[in-house]
Amino acid sequence: MGEIIAHVLEGTALAEGGVDGVVYEPGSEAGSADADAASAAVTGVAVVFLATQALLEQATALGVNLVISHEGLFYCHREDGATWLPDDPVVRRKRELLRRTGITVVRCHDRPHRCQPDTITAGLVEALGWAPQVVTHEPAAAVVAIEPMTLAQVARHVKAKLGIPYVRIAGNPELVCRRIGIAAGYRGGAGVAVPLIQAHGLDLVIAGEGPEWETPEYVRDAARQGRPLAYLALGHAESEEPGMRALAAQLRERFPGVPVHVLRDEPLFSVL
Amino acid sequence: MGEIIAHVLEGTALAEGGVDGVVYEPGSEAGSADADAASAAVTGVAVVFLATQALLEQATALGVNLVISHEGLFYCHREDGATWLPDDPVVRRKRELLRRTGITVVRCHDRPHRCQPDTITAGLVEALGWAPQVVTHEPAAAVVAIEPMTLAQVARHVKAKLGIPYVRIAGNPELVCRRIGIAAGYRGGAGVAVPLIQAHGLDLVIAGEGPEWETPEYVRDAARQGRPLAYLALGHAESEEPGMRALAAQLRERFPGVPVHVLRDEPLFSVL
Repeated sequence: MGEIIAHVLEGTALAEGGVDGVVYEPGSEAGSADADAASAAVTGVAVVFLATQALLEQATALGVNLVISHEGLFYCHREDGATWLPDDPVVRRKRELLRRTGITVVRCHDRPHRCQPDTITAGLVEALGWAPQVVTHEPAAAVVAIEPMTLAQVARHVKAKLGIPYVRIAGNPELVCRRIGIAAGYRGGAGVAVPLIQAHGLDLVIAGEGPEWETPEYVRDAARQGRPLAYLALGHAESEEPGMRALAAQLRERFPGVPVHVLRDEPLFSVL
Repeated sequence: MGEIIAHVLEGTALAEGGVDGVVYEPGSEAGSADADAASAAVTGVAVVFLATQALLEQATALGVNLVISHEGLFYCHREDGATWLPDDPVVRRKRELLRRTGITVVRCHDRPHRCQPDTITAGLVEALGWAPQVVTHEPAAAVVAIEPMTLAQVARHVKAKLGIPYVRIAGNPELVCRRIGIAAGYRGGAGVAVPLIQAHGLDLVIAGEGPEWETPEYVRDAARQGRPLAYLALGHAESEEPGMRALAAQLRERFPGVPVHVLRDEPLFSVL
């Protein structure tokens, strides 16, 4: 197991301010930054956006003992739950499940985001079928130049390619989009999107998640001023699952003898 | 104008880390923390969640020269646009509109949130028709105990009461809800919601906005473990507009001679 863990964490152990590492290993109550689990044999790997209770159960049923999760186990980017929710019953039951099943969980967030290009962004662009249309990969986003499509057509395309039930848009569905910025994860904020729009003459920003009154209000004001712009929110998980699928493909190539599963939970939100 | 500005900013000028203040006044290129506009006569007041381009135009048409905005003018909680987006064309045109119309904009965010109970939360609870059902007002949320309704019924109720086209839910629509936590604005994160759920035995958290993989994933895991819980996202603006309406009512009472309008922009997002 140590070789796979070392591979998915490569380069991040020394990175300041990172969140990657072994976040749960059997026998260690609090989780650990060191991999004592390293000596165990890998029976199977599951790659997920977030190791939910349901996906950990699925992983168990598949005989997996190593789960690679993009986000944390305990509902907070910077904390592992052992410290910030010490007595919480949901956290406790999730830890009990892990103890019972002997699964090791590794968080793999920073490493793929720090690749050039960002593995998560590139995986999303690839899943959207726009890899050949990439103009540039910036650190926090990619820019693609596509054949003109309306925003409504882009929404249909995105839903079909990613297999997701809905997207949220700010902007006119009839807006013709030619240049699109693509920002996976929580990068929909104005700090990323606005300079990107201006630097690349974008019509549309597609993001996972971002503060509602930043970029969406910016594009609304711009449109009102006579410069049509739009924003499309995929959902955080929806925007990063394709990149984790790409990471799983890399693992299969690197460790051909190991079964590597990609597990995906149900859509988190329903619209009513 | 000075008297109204002093009223809406009361107690916040000295508060550390606050964002309230005069964010735009005619004749001051960069905005100012001091109100030189104080001596101008007020021709009308508009109270808004966010002073969008469209609402500033509406305010102009109504003869308003003072706009009280809960959120900032320039797409970022902590910055006024003069510094963080100095050369941005959307910011520039918005400032041109303000210069042309002579409107003063005051941000009024911290003051209502710091009231006891929080004016914004209380306004939301009131708009939902649940003021008589309040169990407690905590600093960041209220708790209400209602007659049992399913989550789907709560969603219908909320949409009808607030006049909004949709909500997003995480959880089973058939879940019976009796105790609900209500967190206006960007307070849907696990840091607020999880302790609230546990302290008050909640079935449901209704929030404006929050990180997608915090509370929504927490309630999903809890339900999977056998403790049904749910989360309902109203939208940031949707959750705070009723509170700003309550603030407008206070202003009308305090300054009976001044026309006070409540302006509301179109829903920011469409679901496709």
